[in-house]
Amino acid sequence: MKKLITLSCLLFVNACGAASSTDINWRALDAKHTVLMTLPQGKVVIELAPQFSPNHVAQFEKLANEGFYADTTFYRVIDGFVAQAGPKDGSEKDKSVAELKVEDQWTTDKNFSFTQVQNKDLFAEKTGFKNGFAMAHSSKEHKAWLTHCPGTLAMARGNGADTATSHFYFVIGQAPRYLDRLMTVFGRVVYGMEHIQSIKRTSTIEGEFAVDSREHTPIISMQIMADVAKEQQIIIEVEDTENEGFAQRLVKRRARDNEFFYNKPPQVLDVCQVPVRSRLVKH
Amino acid sequence: MKKLITLSCLLFVNACGAASSTDINWRALDAKHTVLMTLPQGKVVIELAPQFSPNHVAQFEKLANEGFYADTTFYRVIDGFVAQAGPKDGSEKDKSVAELKVEDQWTTDKNFSFTQVQNKDLFAEKTGFKNGFAMAHSSKEHKAWLTHCPGTLAMARGNGADTATSHFYFVIGQAPRYLDRLMTVFGRVVYGMEHIQSIKRTSTIEGEFAVDSREHTPIISMQIMADVAKEQQIIIEVEDTENEGFAQRLVKRRARDNEFFYNKPPQVLDVCQVPVRSRLVKH
Repeated sequence: MKKLITLSCLLFVNACGAASSTDINWRALDAKHTVLMTLPQGKVVIELAPQFSPNHVAQFEKLANEGFYADTTFYRVIDGFVAQAGPKDGSEKDKSVAELKVEDQWTTDKNFSFTQVQNKDLFAEKTGFKNGFAMAHSSKEHKAWLTHCPGTLAMARGNGADTATSHFYFVIGQAPRYLDRLMTVFGRVVYGMEHIQSIKRTSTIEGEFAVDSREHTPIISMQIMADVAKEQQIIIEVEDTENEGFAQRLVKRRARDNEFFYNKPPQVLDVCQVPVRSRLVKH
Repeated sequence: MKKLITLSCLLFVNACGAASSTDINWRALDAKHTVLMTLPQGKVVIELAPQFSPNHVAQFEKLANEGFYADTTFYRVIDGFVAQAGPKDGSEKDKSVAELKVEDQWTTDKNFSFTQVQNKDLFAEKTGFKNGFAMAHSSKEHKAWLTHCPGTLAMARGNGADTATSHFYFVIGQAPRYLDRLMTVFGRVVYGMEHIQSIKRTSTIEGEFAVDSREHTPIISMQIMADVAKEQQIIIEVEDTENEGFAQRLVKRRARDNEFFYNKPPQVLDVCQVPVRSRLVKH
């Protein structure tokens, strides 16, 4: 069991005995702003971010409520990049939805606080977490924004900033941080990410057969958790990131004090590589 | 089709007309150092790196040749982190394999060259590519090393540096760059990464049922491509990264000149987020 235990320490501090689940402050999700997406391969739970992207969340919730996404498909799925879904482009359904003003950053005042992860990140002055969401901040510009990490949910758009409607994507590969402050991030996967990772790829390489659209992964249903019948609900709690315990775990993660590290790696953290834990209360 | 075309530009320059496949210098893989791994869900092709990690590659090839990995399983699969496989810990098979001296970096002389991607990366002085592999370099320390990116193949080990045997892992999530210079990277996935991404997760969160070991994804076979019957071979060519065309595409990727970018992102590149293309010559 040697290898299993030691490598587990690299990601899960609690596997090394440094922190147990009882040390974690858990936060209940608001069922009114939580989404249950059902795919053929399994169920996915998404936490929405009305505090950061209120109009995108409101539109997505309205569409989910109307059953708009049922039977739409993931029509653009590029391994290592994104899985994108929505109605057939140019269809009546597609044209029925109003365009949204972009919500890809917000202005911060001197009272703005967040749990800092990294100073001088490659793409931002500072990175950190706010309400469980990975984010970045520029004190010079007085702006903050949610970052693109694996599991991020954001709205697609055309070339214009304010052209997003209903098409959305999940990040399924290495964080495309160059999309930060350009696309509206409005949610994150908190359960079932492996089902997002098994969505059928639609993008092929030279020499491969094209993927028939009948093979695209469909969305069976997209529901607001509060509206799901009690016995069908999946109740998730997530790690509270505005908390001294979480901040202390960041310190430990940066230090890499375990004997496994016979050389010390640089004392830096990639905000998209820091896990924010979930636990299942009921399914 | 608007959304499909514009977002494709973000990752694939050729989808925007800036570069077509004919502009790419393709490099044939050496079938003697290429591996065909067959999983229940599909076939995966791996390019090995004998030029960087000769002893790990030699041991892996020897084991593959002996059929050592057939019927072993991915027994430790953590979404967003790694998929690890090998024989049952402590079994006769496990104990039969010699420990390897770590090959996690090499010494460079003044003639060392590579295709640079980023100066002052978060984890290294410089990042870039050498022979298609993502790597980093410290001119101060005269050391270079292969980096942990999605699709990287590396050998697992115990706490000691020189304790790797046969257990290996693929990176399946955000690059765990803190493992650079600590683990021996010796290959990369060049085809079928989506099948690696659909390996059954074995790590559960609090509140979930444990995964029965009978559900673990097995390796049906692991073969050196040169030894595979001609009609079963998958012939892949990969983008040549020691080439002016590739360097020019890096320049374009950094500049983000497409009108989609109504704000210019920082002019930086994450080496693990730069695609190195493959094409299928025969399957």
